[in-house]
Amino acid sequence: MKSFIPTIYYNTFGSHPAACKVKPGEVIHTYLVDAHGFDKDGKQVSQSPNPQVGPFYVEGAEPGDRLVVKLLNITLNRRDGWSYDMLRPHLVEAAFCQHLPERTQNFWEIDFEHNKVILKNPPKPLKRVEVPIRPVLGCLGVAPERGEAITTYTCGNFGGNMDYYGMVEGMTIYLPVFVPGGLLFMGDGHAVQSQGEVTGAGLETSCEVTFEVGLVKNNPVHIRWLRGEDKTYLYTIGNARPLDLAVQCATTEMVRWLMEDYGLSLEAANVLMSQSVEYEMGNLVSSNFTAVCKLSKSIIRDALAD
Amino acid sequence: MKSFIPTIYYNTFGSHPAACKVKPGEVIHTYLVDAHGFDKDGKQVSQSPNPQVGPFYVEGAEPGDRLVVKLLNITLNRRDGWSYDMLRPHLVEAAFCQHLPERTQNFWEIDFEHNKVILKNPPKPLKRVEVPIRPVLGCLGVAPERGEAITTYTCGNFGGNMDYYGMVEGMTIYLPVFVPGGLLFMGDGHAVQSQGEVTGAGLETSCEVTFEVGLVKNNPVHIRWLRGEDKTYLYTIGNARPLDLAVQCATTEMVRWLMEDYGLSLEAANVLMSQSVEYEMGNLVSSNFTAVCKLSKSIIRDALAD
Amino acid sequence: MKSFIPTIYYNTFGSHPAACKVKPGEVIHTYLVDAHGFDKDGKQVSQSPNPQVGPFYVEGAEPGDRLVVKLLNITLNRRDGWSYDMLRPHLVEAAFCQHLPERTQNFWEIDFEHNKVILKNPPKPLKRVEVPIRPVLGCLGVAPERGEAITTYTCGNFGGNMDYYGMVEGMTIYLPVFVPGGLLFMGDGHAVQSQGEVTGAGLETSCEVTFEVGLVKNNPVHIRWLRGEDKTYLYTIGNARPLDLAVQCATTEMVRWLMEDYGLSLEAANVLMSQSVEYEMGNLVSSNFTAVCKLSKSIIRDALAD
Amino acid sequence: MKSFIPTIYYNTFGSHPAACKVKPGEVIHTYLVDAHGFDKDGKQVSQSPNPQVGPFYVEGAEPGDRLVVKLLNITLNRRDGWSYDMLRPHLVEAAFCQHLPERTQNFWEIDFEHNKVILKNPPKPLKRVEVPIRPVLGCLGVAPERGEAITTYTCGNFGGNMDYYGMVEGMTIYLPVFVPGGLLFMGDGHAVQSQGEVTGAGLETSCEVTFEVGLVKNNPVHIRWLRGEDKTYLYTIGNARPLDLAVQCATTEMVRWLMEDYGLSLEAANVLMSQSVEYEMGNLVSSNFTAVCKLSKSIIRDALAD
Repeated sequence: MKSFIPTIYYNTFGSHPAACKVKPGEVIHTYLVDAHGFDKDGKQVSQSPNPQVGPFYVEGAEPGDRLVVKLLNITLNRRDGWSYDMLRPHLVEAAFCQHLPERTQNFWEIDFEHNKVILKNPPKPLKRVEVPIRPVLGCLGVAPERGEAITTYTCGNFGGNMDYYGMVEGMTIYLPVFVPGGLLFMGDGHAVQSQGEVTGAGLETSCEVTFEVGLVKNNPVHIRWLRGEDKTYLYTIGNARPLDLAVQCATTEMVRWLMEDYGLSLEAANVLMSQSVEYEMGNLVSSNFTAVCKLSKSIIRDALAD
Repeated sequence: MKSFIPTIYYNTFGSHPAACKVKPGEVIHTYLVDAHGFDKDGKQVSQSPNPQVGPFYVEGAEPGDRLVVKLLNITLNRRDGWSYDMLRPHLVEAAFCQHLPERTQNFWEIDFEHNKVILKNPPKPLKRVEVPIRPVLGCLGVAPERGEAITTYTCGNFGGNMDYYGMVEGMTIYLPVFVPGGLLFMGDGHAVQSQGEVTGAGLETSCEVTFEVGLVKNNPVHIRWLRGEDKTYLYTIGNARPLDLAVQCATTEMVRWLMEDYGLSLEAANVLMSQSVEYEMGNLVSSNFTAVCKLSKSIIRDALAD
Repeated sequence: MKSFIPTIYYNTFGSHPAACKVKPGEVIHTYLVDAHGFDKDGKQVSQSPNPQVGPFYVEGAEPGDRLVVKLLNITLNRRDGWSYDMLRPHLVEAAFCQHLPERTQNFWEIDFEHNKVILKNPPKPLKRVEVPIRPVLGCLGVAPERGEAITTYTCGNFGGNMDYYGMVEGMTIYLPVFVPGGLLFMGDGHAVQSQGEVTGAGLETSCEVTFEVGLVKNNPVHIRWLRGEDKTYLYTIGNARPLDLAVQCATTEMVRWLMEDYGLSLEAANVLMSQSVEYEMGNLVSSNFTAVCKLSKSIIRDALAD
Repeated sequence: MKSFIPTIYYNTFGSHPAACKVKPGEVIHTYLVDAHGFDKDGKQVSQSPNPQVGPFYVEGAEPGDRLVVKLLNITLNRRDGWSYDMLRPHLVEAAFCQHLPERTQNFWEIDFEHNKVILKNPPKPLKRVEVPIRPVLGCLGVAPERGEAITTYTCGNFGGNMDYYGMVEGMTIYLPVFVPGGLLFMGDGHAVQSQGEVTGAGLETSCEVTFEVGLVKNNPVHIRWLRGEDKTYLYTIGNARPLDLAVQCATTEMVRWLMEDYGLSLEAANVLMSQSVEYEMGNLVSSNFTAVCKLSKSIIRDALAD
């Protein structure tokens, strides 16, 4: 296992100089700071928003390939975190929004012994707010196409700040490669989070991530959006705005996946999805929104079994 | 238990003459035809789309009250169903849509012995498509406000064709009352369905529904959107377009619920939702879309416990 | 010329009993009350929102035909009007919306001598607010399909509350016929209005309208959305939400018009539109929004001339 | 007048090295290639999409200031141009989109003698397609904030590929400054264009632009979106998606302008807009859309006159 200790952090997903070269098949262990740049010792070592570790240059990766990232482990590494206390105004009805105050920061204790986070000073009439720990990787992305550099506040077909609560240990993510080496970034660890990251923050804290990098050479087509899988589901991730477009992108990518990698006809792909597809929401608080389309792997396996 | 055997079906949610008067607390058993109007014997007794049974006039219900519908049981009552084979064009990326053919109808066997539905004549290369039975009520609604009559193809703040796969046995739904008696309708049973009802049909079949009606007099405010609960979750349902607005409506109604019925401050309501809220998609195929916001009841209970 | 003096007003577009039977080719003169139901004498004779005069039953009109309404004259008939002073909250950025107060009513003098409207009590530091009179018909619609009755607050493929500032004397509108007689409604006169009706009101007042009714038997296809023309332009009107969908509907209807009525190929229709099409916004304040696509008639005429 | 002959072109709006330093008050004359990088001699000197000339570093410009660009002259400089023949699929209804073929390129003669463009080989049954010349600047932007580099295919709060047909001689544009020198870019000349640039191309050709650069030091606030003015109107430009959000951004910026620069109260700003505001569409074909809000200068002038 290779250890990578970051010394520089980025606030854009872009074609920055490789910070670490990795080979397909290698396992890397690294350290992420929180969304405001504070590390495991509570020291600010970089700037908001969502400072990224990397880029990891994957040897042999060329435009058109797929980068594979297996999330082997995400471990929190300090005893506190923070969040915000108020829904973002664009997430409530406009008439209600007129009465919404500015958000303020909440602080939480991370209680490793009881595997939960505990809100400090809960607002009345709440007596306690406790949520089980479930570490999530808020940001994962590669260098975008066309020479773009995109703020780590948002997301796109390159991944980015997707704030999807399914990005946990056990998930394998496939990312499109747009530039040589792919240039993988990660950051923005959450001790836990809702769908939507509705207040603009998960439970923000620092963490350590262990992941395995893989590479699929053009197979046979370029993926358009991120894909993921775990033991149970296939996932496709659309990052766009409005949410309707994000849903379109994720849904279309699922059709493509079934056709391209499973060899299904268009009709067969649609029939499998028709009674079984599910959706979850990632980031609903940046300039693009994240919609995830899920399909049970068992229904595909059963449909193709002899 | 009162049995109601329908003799007339409606294709609009509107202020139609009461078909059945019920008292709060009464349990009713009734029969739903499928979305094209075919009954348990495969005989067409009414017209597409989504013919509704009712309206049930709830004695004492006045505008501003809340109607309560507990879904006690949904039982399929014939051995076949149908669906469509192709995603609706607005659910895929526009460039992909250019290659999408017209949908055709699929037919399924309902296998009660093995508790699953089985696709007849699966398209190649699929060998079999089987999905576990999970009966869902596609439509539930009341007469709208302002004298409107709305096609059973769509949905709104009165409920309607929400195609939400959480509308199963064990769910309790709260609906706003806009007219005397509330005028409750239901229809469009599904043997199972995906989120989004992405091809424009669940697994459409006839069924029997047993439900208990309740009434909450103005308490203290009028609900704006449907609410629901089961043992585990609170649900709020926004029906609007685009999906972003449906999410806004559902999210706002959850804040209101926590403030109005649980006595929370705006800040307390938001803090509870911040790390815990979830979303699911209902109908993504009519002129309005359905977004559901969910919050675990345990986090509320724990936060308020002494 | 037939005079029709209304005695009943409707707050839904629906299949209400015919109030007046008219023959194709007939000219009708009638009286509209303002959006809150106040007539030329300032007396409230009906209820908000947008009480409609009609329905006019056009003899011979059958589903699939096109109703033609030529707006020959719109004349204001009282010396005052009203509006609102604050943008609707969904029309500003969500963060700005947090600071938007509730709207209040403005009152205006209608100065026929100088052909302008003059705001009473302008807010400081404004010294005077005067706008030239330009009478607009805010609502025009027919009975919807599928037995629907739709609130006069909104709009759809049947027309309705479109609040489009191009609905002035000299405009000819084509409406789809969904029910026998078509059942034409009109209401909601404005002394003048912006695009978008951004505060939720034009300059609301009573007026008299003179219009000629025509009928085009199925020719050869059913129009999907309202069309209009004056000396200079073709207009197509999409009423939907979000605005993106309204633009899609209007744009598609323009393509169809060029293909169906002008005999153009799809490619020819698109080429004509490519450098010349324009858009204007009608109602941006109800549950559906109104987008208008315009194309100069001269470019079509020139392209087809020998 | 300073002449700037470009030797390098950019396909992102970003913090590229200054190509030309200019002082506030200076007039610059420069040469733009077409959207595919072809110059006045029909030679390809740079790459698609929309290669930009610049960046112009404006001396003294600091983040928070406003850059001023007066378009003094846009002159076409070759005798041909091109466009596309088919609406982009996301601009028509999804069901219609299923029948839309891929677009192909159209070629046009630019007839300076008769001041019009003439389509070569018009598709049948069209005999001729001619449109008057009206040169438009498709792209105008500055380096974005947060270190971003954004493809010249799209637009944002930094300007960019806005494809707004109001960007003609006589227009003065105000742009926010995010980085020292502002770093002004321009490109993508059109001999003429529709609203929306609905086929994804205006009438694309090379041209020469003469413009005056100005600088307004923080006055007193940072503008959030581009503003413009000519003799008749104020313009505010929102670049976002969906179109509804672009309209919100443009509308909000108009309110801010009236409050910040004209000293109006919120209520006074809204009242002035309420009956008079207009909208036009720019780019409807990239990942962000462009909506323009217009307000007549005369109504403001009259309202404030003694």
